[in-house]
This record gives sequence, structure tokens and C-alpha cells, in this order.
Amino acid sequence: MSEIKKVAVIMGSDSDFPVVRKAAEVLKDFGVPFELHVLSAHRSPKEVAAFASTARENGFGVIIAAAGMAAHLAGAVAGNTTLPVIGIPVKAKALEGMDALLATVMMPPGVPVATVGVDGAANAGYLAVEILSVANDELAEKLAAFKKKQNEKNLEADRKIAEMAKEI
Amino acid sequence: MSEIKKVAVIMGSDSDFPVVRKAAEVLKDFGVPFELHVLSAHRSPKEVAAFASTARENGFGVIIAAAGMAAHLAGAVAGNTTLPVIGIPVKAKALEGMDALLATVMMPPGVPVATVGVDGAANAGYLAVEILSVANDELAEKLAAFKKKQNEKNLEADRKIAEMAKEI
Amino acid sequence: MSEIKKVAVIMGSDSDFPVVRKAAEVLKDFGVPFELHVLSAHRSPKEVAAFASTARENGFGVIIAAAGMAAHLAGAVAGNTTLPVIGIPVKAKALEGMDALLATVMMPPGVPVATVGVDGAANAGYLAVEILSVANDELAEKLAAFKKKQNEKNLEADRKIAEMAKEI
Amino acid sequence: MSEIKKVAVIMGSDSDFPVVRKAAEVLKDFGVPFELHVLSAHRSPKEVAAFASTARENGFGVIIAAAGMAAHLAGAVAGNTTLPVIGIPVKAKALEGMDALLATVMMPPGVPVATVGVDGAANAGYLAVEILSVANDELAEKLAAFKKKQNEKNLEADRKIAEMAKEI
Amino acid sequence: MSEIKKVAVIMGSDSDFPVVRKAAEVLKDFGVPFELHVLSAHRSPKEVAAFASTARENGFGVIIAAAGMAAHLAGAVAGNTTLPVIGIPVKAKALEGMDALLATVMMPPGVPVATVGVDGAANAGYLAVEILSVANDELAEKLAAFKKKQNEKNLEADRKIAEMAKEI
Amino acid sequence: MSEIKKVAVIMGSDSDFPVVRKAAEVLKDFGVPFELHVLSAHRSPKEVAAFASTARENGFGVIIAAAGMAAHLAGAVAGNTTLPVIGIPVKAKALEGMDALLATVMMPPGVPVATVGVDGAANAGYLAVEILSVANDELAEKLAAFKKKQNEKNLEADRKIAEMAKEI
Amino acid sequence: MSEIKKVAVIMGSDSDFPVVRKAAEVLKDFGVPFELHVLSAHRSPKEVAAFASTARENGFGVIIAAAGMAAHLAGAVAGNTTLPVIGIPVKAKALEGMDALLATVMMPPGVPVATVGVDGAANAGYLAVEILSVANDELAEKLAAFKKKQNEKNLEADRKIAEMAKEI
Amino acid sequence: MSEIKKVAVIMGSDSDFPVVRKAAEVLKDFGVPFELHVLSAHRSPKEVAAFASTARENGFGVIIAAAGMAAHLAGAVAGNTTLPVIGIPVKAKALEGMDALLATVMMPPGVPVATVGVDGAANAGYLAVEILSVANDELAEKLAAFKKKQNEKNLEADRKIAEMAKEI
Repeated sequence: MSEIKKVAVIMGSDSDFPVVRKAAEVLKDFGVPFELHVLSAHRSPKEVAAFASTARENGFGVIIAAAGMAAHLAGAVAGNTTLPVIGIPVKAKALEGMDALLATVMMPPGVPVATVGVDGAANAGYLAVEILSVANDELAEKLAAFKKKQNEKNLEADRKIAEMAKEI
Repeated sequence: MSEIKKVAVIMGSDSDFPVVRKAAEVLKDFGVPFELHVLSAHRSPKEVAAFASTARENGFGVIIAAAGMAAHLAGAVAGNTTLPVIGIPVKAKALEGMDALLATVMMPPGVPVATVGVDGAANAGYLAVEILSVANDELAEKLAAFKKKQNEKNLEADRKIAEMAKEI
Repeated sequence: MSEIKKVAVIMGSDSDFPVVRKAAEVLKDFGVPFELHVLSAHRSPKEVAAFASTARENGFGVIIAAAGMAAHLAGAVAGNTTLPVIGIPVKAKALEGMDALLATVMMPPGVPVATVGVDGAANAGYLAVEILSVANDELAEKLAAFKKKQNEKNLEADRKIAEMAKEI
Repeated sequence: MSEIKKVAVIMGSDSDFPVVRKAAEVLKDFGVPFELHVLSAHRSPKEVAAFASTARENGFGVIIAAAGMAAHLAGAVAGNTTLPVIGIPVKAKALEGMDALLATVMMPPGVPVATVGVDGAANAGYLAVEILSVANDELAEKLAAFKKKQNEKNLEADRKIAEMAKEI
Repeated sequence: MSEIKKVAVIMGSDSDFPVVRKAAEVLKDFGVPFELHVLSAHRSPKEVAAFASTARENGFGVIIAAAGMAAHLAGAVAGNTTLPVIGIPVKAKALEGMDALLATVMMPPGVPVATVGVDGAANAGYLAVEILSVANDELAEKLAAFKKKQNEKNLEADRKIAEMAKEI
Repeated sequence: MSEIKKVAVIMGSDSDFPVVRKAAEVLKDFGVPFELHVLSAHRSPKEVAAFASTARENGFGVIIAAAGMAAHLAGAVAGNTTLPVIGIPVKAKALEGMDALLATVMMPPGVPVATVGVDGAANAGYLAVEILSVANDELAEKLAAFKKKQNEKNLEADRKIAEMAKEI
Repeated sequence: MSEIKKVAVIMGSDSDFPVVRKAAEVLKDFGVPFELHVLSAHRSPKEVAAFASTARENGFGVIIAAAGMAAHLAGAVAGNTTLPVIGIPVKAKALEGMDALLATVMMPPGVPVATVGVDGAANAGYLAVEILSVANDELAEKLAAFKKKQNEKNLEADRKIAEMAKEI
Repeated sequence: MSEIKKVAVIMGSDSDFPVVRKAAEVLKDFGVPFELHVLSAHRSPKEVAAFASTARENGFGVIIAAAGMAAHLAGAVAGNTTLPVIGIPVKAKALEGMDALLATVMMPPGVPVATVGVDGAANAGYLAVEILSVANDELAEKLAAFKKKQNEKNLEADRKIAEMAKEI
């Protein structure tokens, strides 16, 4: 089995960290090595291009990019790599995250961004693990165990709600 | 190097085929084996669940799911597998595809769908290839070549437009 | 007159309970038997399918399903039963509930979901009672009494506001 | 088993007929008696109120109401009856049906409208049949047969698409 | 000069009063007689119809109607009178008032509602005064004086802001 | 009874004429004198201001203003007169008329625009007639007759549709 | 090198000042002379027209205009000058700023407004500086220095986040 | 008076040319030198960065960038230059141009894009001329003449429409 490749988690601004950290936490839970970066499509475009275009040779397997408003970061990364790029649209002060969602997901043919929901950082992490699991049976097993646990938690909640129903 | 895993391309209805076929064409161009299926989250939910929950053991590496309106197909697949699932929101007769986009992308934590743009079937294909390329150097090289060709086409268009500018 | 059938009230997560409980309270007020469940289209899809596909034979007459974001629960239930399914779109942290509304209501032909407004749990309860009242005159009378009382409350508010108008 | 109650299918204008007729066709397919009406919440409000408030005693079990733009018809009916009311939002020339959808579904507590998707007339028919099936085993059996047939059609399409895949 | 006709200010629920009272305050400031009412298109449809259809003969010149969500009140009034009806869309807990705006303004031909902005109760009051001023020179003069005062306030704010600019 | 005041129908561009002419046709049907004008908030702002600020003294009772996109015309007129101003948002090539609707209706306090639906020119005409009818019994009678005729047409359509129902 | 021209910063109401002041602060940081004004498209239309139509001869090079809701101010200014006009859509209590954005940006041909994002006052300031820098090398150098500093701050944040990654 | 600087008109794909050419036509009408380019933020990111970062020293004064969907081009240019960048959001097959509008206009502080309306290429041209006119009196005079002509055309249309009014 191949070694697990690294995941890069990039955010446009350190103010996005409270949202983005969930992606890193998921990766840690699954034992996936990762790096966190603050790189902006508009304030550090050269560094974004440099990072993205060398990411594969530097041992990365997936790049997660989070940004708000006219969220170009994931697209800018995708334009400079052939690795799968996961985009997290971050909700800002206006427009309810619709701006970031559309700016992340509506990419032109040949340059896809695997977009998760608004502020969906945890799912970006899970998706990265799933992508790496395609060639890694250990991760696949961990994911199966996680899915089973999610199911059990849901069924446990079902048992408790039946109890609460009596008090209505 | 590991053998290339198969990609499943599922659509909710055969009326989605004109949109979805671009995903299959991309896969074919890259030499990625794929299967096309018509399976509906609402009309054949058991078959969707059966297909998705056995997809990994059946040799699939990625599942692409396309659906319109209250587009549940990608989510229904994602709920039954730990493989990466790519969702294509298909534009229907009303609401400009916004319904399918939101129904595909806004997934709950732990069940991600890698969403591409409205009617973005080609990108679903490219994204699947990228995902498989993480553990397959040959695909990575093909993607690099494709990216280079896209760049050259763009620069070629740039040269031609400069010509057209003279006629304005 | 036939015995009143049970109503199932299902929510995707127990965090939806504060919204959903109004549906149960309405059912209780009308003396309609009900069960509360936490079942997720994505985390417990098999249990959702099992529950929905046996609901009619288990004595249920209506299923209410509440979920937020890419709200697939009502649709997943509807795909596994021929009972009337009422969908409650729940507003989440972004997008003002528009995602859940579209993901609930825009169902394909043959698999309807009777959708109420965003966070409209009380109306889901009233609609369930109305559906059961089609074959139950006692419920029909209770609904008529309820409607009369709503009207009286409205007219009472009208009298009071006329009083308040003097102070403007 | 109780006799099948009638379904009223009301549209705001006869220009809605091409959309609405699918509801009637579904009802006919299931052998459910129905009446078609053109009654406008704004042009014939008294007739709407008169029709709705006597519908139950006149043998109706469900009322389907279709309207476009500021689609008040379903709500106006619901305000005058305790029967279940199904609303069909009809797409007009602007705003992609979003106006009719919101004007139909966002009803205040105590006056629910069971809303189907934009131009979702067929689903309004199916939903009416489902509602009547709660107290009618024959309709329940017909629905089960219909659901099975939908499933078979979907699987048949799946077989055909696998064939088409070879030509890509 | 004709006597000033009364303005009816109707709201769907007394919970709308904090928004609607601004309309009444404007009317009072201009010396226009008014009545406040709580009447719901869905909970007291007969009273709405009765009020609206006799409003002209009862000395009203304009009817203001405020409602939220699937805001039908203004339309229900307009369907029962030929007086000018002003609609105030009230913002509710979800969807930012877009539902009420579309449900109020998109009326079918022949049944107009003069719609003001979301929560625009003050403007409903001013519009009512403007309508009455068409046949009342005294109101026209008061409006001219009000407009002049608004202009002066604006210019006064301009002088002050120039002062504040120095501190930046 | 006072003489009927004139209605000004202003459009931002003569390309709006096919939409706007319905307003003029309604006015003609009711015998209301009117003037048509092409005046742009952006291309002829001085003329707009001059026209609006003298409209009352020039015998106008109502001003109808139609514009598309960032539809400022009605607001620009309203800023220069105390007459009631009716705004028609005109749908342009993108955004389904939502731009024009919001730019017309969301006016600041003290400067109302009585907004009708997107492309709702006929309703702008009817609303103008209603406004003038407040002080003109003859117009009030004509409106009552029109409303009765609308009702009769609707009931006539109801009779015909019952006939068509037999053929489904 | 030509002297730096003045920038006018106009807001529709002094309640917009907390948002707008960032534009002025940016101008001050760059040493660009500016004037702050409160002028409303609807409450002081003549003063707006007078100011805008003489702005160029009075030494202004750019006009920034901020307004909310049916935000006409920037357009009203643009209709009366040939100077570049920058529009700031200000978010108000409803609709998340979408109204102001569309009312500012969707201008008719020949009357452009250079629109920045919702509440994007700082960017209005930077854009004004950029416009003035076209003919002023000193400003161009300051902008280059500012851009470099932004880049450095971003890279500094990148170094810090790498540190924080260790604690996850 | 300084020589007129060049304007760069960049589009993401040559399929945007039918929309974008209006910008070039306007520039030509005003005698402003320009270059047309096809450069994609995603397919030729290095060339975009290279072009943008040397544009000022290469004699450009303004850069116009047009793109559709997740329209990153203008932002990518703005991240690499301190020249004023004008963004044209281009309407694509879905979502009515809302995606391109939000992806263009909602830029982060310090990296403004002067956004014009959806498909507003002509206005991008006029805005570029206005920006260059700040330091060029000849262009300022041409713009004044153009504005006067626009006004005259509008008044001419006004005269003609008055004629057409007679035929209604």
C-alpha cells in the first residue's frame, strides 16, 4: 500500500481560520498528514501559483482551498495544478455565502474545483480523506468505521428522541 | 503503479444523457474505464443503495452522479459509500439550475459531495481523472499534457484575437 | 369511522428538534397518535428506507420529514413509500433556508413531497391532520373548530388594535 | 372501504391549463373523480371562498390549486377550507417561478398549503392520490403498482444506457 | 376642496404592529384620518372581503395592507375593491423578505397592488398621502413642505459631515 | 366632480415601448387623458427633474415611470414631485427583472414609488385609474364595471374548462 | 507630473458614514485630497445634479457615491458628469445588500458606474487612488508599495498559521 | 497634455468576443488605443500574471477583463497590477449572470475591480475613457460631447413617442 500523501489546506486570510480548522481536525483524526497555509489569490498570487504548480512533486495529493466573497483561491490553485482541488466557500458579512459558492463552483471546462457547501470545512476534510482512500485501503477502512459510527450516533439519537416524544 | 480504478457515471434519468455524456467522453479520452448507469434516488432507491454500497469492492474508484431539480442522487450515493462522489447539478426548466446546485452541494458534515458547476459534466470527468491521478503517475502525466494543451489553445486564441482587433 | 392512523415525524438530526417539535405539539392537540424519529437520509439511509417502506403496513397514514441544507430526507422517504410525505425545509446557518426549500420541493414526477414553508413545522402538523381528516369526521370537526378559533383570535386582535390606534 | 372522494383542480386562469392538465391526467389514470375549475383569487374571490368553504360537504377530499406570479390561489382556498390543499406554483414570464413558489409555500401557521415544485402539476395529482389512499386500500395498491412500474422503467433505462455507453 | 378620505391600515397579525405603526404615524403627522385593523387573508378571509368591498362607500380613499411570508393580504384586499391598495411586504424570520415582496408585487393584470419596499411602512403612509393629495391642495402643500424639510435636513447633514471629514 | 387629471407615462428608452404601451391602452380605455414621454434618469436627468417638479402644476395627477436594469427612473421622478409615482420594473436580458424590481421598489423613507410587478404595465394603468378614482365617482363606476366584467370572464372560463375536463 | 485631483465621497445619508469612512481613510493614507458629502438622489436631487455637473471644473477627478436599498446615488451622479464614478452598494436591513448591488451596477450603456462589492468602501478608496495613479507616478509608486506590503502581511500570516497547525 | 495611455481588453475565452467587442468599439470611437487579448485566469494563469504585472510599464492605463461563470479573470489581473481594472461579468448558460457578477464584484479590501453590469461591455469602454479623461482634457471634451448627444437622442425619442401616443 502506498504511503499517504499530504493534504494542503490553504485559506485566503487568517480570519478564515475558525471555519477552516475543522478541515484540519478531520485530517488529523484520520492520520492524514497536512500543511496549513495562508495564501491569497489576490495578495500573494505568485506564491499561490508557485505552491500549486509544485504541490504534486512536493508530495501533496489533495489541495483544499477556502475563501469568501469573490472566492477565487480554489480556482487559482486549480489553474496551476492537476491535483484534485477542493473548494470551501466561506460566508462573509453579506449575501449569505452565495457569492463565495458561485465564485468557487462555476469553473470553466478543464479546471474543476470539487466544491463543498458554504462553510463546509469538515466535509472538505472528509472528501480529501475519501480521495486518498481510493489508493489506500487503511483509509478506506477508517472511513467505513467512521460511517458506521455516524450511523450508530444517528440511531442512538433516534432512541433518545423517542423518549423526548413522551414529554410533548 | 496501481491499475486504474473504474468510474461510475450515474444519472437520475436518461433525459440527462445529453448533458452527462461529456463526463464519459472525458474519461474515454484519458483511457479511464467507466460504466454509465441510470439510477434514480427516488425511483430506484434500493438499486442506488446497492450499487453505491458495493462500488468500492466492485472496483470503482470514483462515482459521478448527475441530477436536476431537488437533486438528491449524489447525496444518496454518498450516504452509501466512502468513495469520493462527484455531483453534477443539472439545469431543469425553471430556477436556472439553482435548485440542483443547492440540493447537491449543501451536504451535512461527514457526507461530502464534490460538486462541480451547473451542467458541468466535463469538469466532473476531469475531476475524476485528477482523483485517480493521485495514485497513478500515468494519468498525472496525461493531465499535465492536457493542461499544457489547454494553455496553448488559449495562447493561440490570443494571437487570433489580436488579428481580429484590427477589424473593429 | 375509521381509527386515526399514526403520523411519523422524522428529523435528520436531533438538532432539528426545537423547530420540529411544533409539528408534534399540533398533532397532540388534535389527538393524533404520532412517533418521533431521528433518521438521516445520509447517515442512516437503510433505516430510512426500511422505515418508509413499511410505514403503511405499520399503521402510519402520513410521514413528516424535516431537514436542512441539501434537505434530502423528505425525498428519500417519498422514494420508499406511497404514503403522503410532508417536507419541512429547515433554515441552517447560511442561505436563509433557500437551499432546504428547493431541495425539498423540486421533486421529480411521481415522487411528490408536500412541502410547507421554511421552518414551517406547525403547518406540517396541521397539514397531517387535514390529510387524516379526509376520512375522519371527528378530525374534520376539530379542524373546523380550530379554524373558527383562529378567526376569533384574529377578530379579537382587530378590536384591540383599534384601541391602540388612538395612542399613535 | 370508503368511496373515493372527489378532487377539485382549480387554476387561476385558463392560460394555466397546459401546465395543470397533467394533474387531471394523473387523477384519471388512477380512477379518481375530479372537477376542473377556473377561479381566480383576485378576479372571482367570492366564488373561490364559496367553492372552498363548501368543498368538504360537496364530496371533495382534496383541492389542487395552481397559480403563477403572486400565486395566492392555493392560500385563498386554504383560508376557506380544512381540506388538504395542494399548491402548484406556475412559472410565468419573469423570475423563473420563484415568485409563485414563495407565494404558495410560505403560509402562516394554521393555514398550510402542500406545495409541489414549480410547474409540478403531475406531482400534485400523485400527491392527491396518495392523500386519498390513506383511507383507500385500492388506491394504495394502485400506487404501489405505479411505484413498481416507475422503478422498472428506471432499470430498463439503465440497461439501455449501458448499451449507449459503448458508443461514446 | 373635498374632505380628506380615510385611510385603512390593515395588518395580517398584531405581531406586525411594530413595523406597521410608522404608516399610521405618517398619516397622523399629515392630519389624514385613518383606521387600524388586524385582518388576515387566511384567518379572517370573509372579514377581509367584507371590509374591502365596502371600503369605498364607507369613506375610505386608500387601503394599506401589510403582511409577511406568502403575503396575500394586499392582493386579497385588491381583489375586493377598486380603491388603490398599498402593499407593505414584511420581513419574517427567513428569506430576508423576498417572499413577502414577490407575493405582494407580482399581481395579475387588472388587480394592481402599489408595493413599497420591504418593511417600508413609512413610505406606505407617504404614498397614501400623495394619492389623497391629487384632489386635495392642502395635502399637496403639506407634502411640498415636507419635501423641502427633507431636503434641508439632508443639506444640514452635508454641512456636518464636512466637519467630520476633518477628523479622519 | 373634479375634472380628471392627466397621467404621464414615462419610459427610460423607446425600446421599452412594447411593454409600456399597455399602460397607455388601459388609460385610454378608461378615458383618462395621458401623455407618453421618453426621458432617462441618466441621459436626460435635467429634463426628468424639470418635468417631474412641474407635473402637478401642469395638470398631472399621477406619473407612471418604466425602466429596466438599475431602474432609477421612477425614483428620480419621485425625488422631484409629491405626486404619486408608479414604477414599472422592466425585464432586461439578464437577471430576470430582479434588478429592475429591487431598484424600483426599495426606496428610502419619504420618497415612495408605488411599484407594480415586473413588466406589469397594464397594472400601472389600472393603478393610475384607481388613484384618480378616489376623487372621481365616474372612474370609480367604470372600475366597478371593469371588475365585474373580469369576474364574468373568469366565470365564463370556468364554464368552458368544465367542458374541457371531459376530454382528458 | 500633474497635481493630484480631489476625490468626492458622497453618501446618501449620514447613517452610511460608518461604512463609508473607510474610503476616506484610504484616501488620506495615500495623501489624496478629498471632500465628504451627504447628498441624496431623492432628497436633494438638484444639489446632486449641481455638484456632479460642476465636479470636473471644480477640480475633482473621481466621485465615490455610497447608497443602500434602491441605491440610485451613484447613477444619479453618473448621469450628470463624465468623471469616473465609483459606486458602493450599502447593505441595509433586508435582502443582504443584493438590492443595492443590482441598483448600482446594472447601468444603461453610456452611463457606467464602477461598482465595488457590498459595503466595499475601502476598495472604493483604493480604486480611486488607482484611477488617479494613471497620470501620477507618485501614487503609482505608493500603490506598488502598498501591494508589496499586503503581500508581506499575507506571507507573515502564512508563517504564523503553520505554527498554529501544530496545535490542532 | 499627456499622451493617451493604452487600454487592454482581455477576455477569458474567444467565445466571449461577441459580448466584449462593444468595449473595443467604444474605445475606437473615442480614439483610445487598445489591445485585445484572450487570456484565461485558469488556462493561462502565468500569462495573465505576466501581462498584468508589466502592463503599467508597457504603457497601459486601464485593463478591462471579461469573463463568465466563476469569473476570476478581472480579480486575477487586479492581483497583479495597481492599474485600475474594469470587470465585465458575462452571462453564461445558467444562473442569469449572477455567478459572474458576484465573482467579479465582491473583491477583498485592497484589490478592487471596477465592475460594470452583466454583459455591460459598452460601459466598460466608456468607463475606461472616463478614467483616462481625468488627465486628458481632449477625452473629457469628447465625453461631454457624447453625453450631450445621448441627451439629444433621448429628447428626439421623446418627441417621436409623443407622436406614437396618438395611435394608441
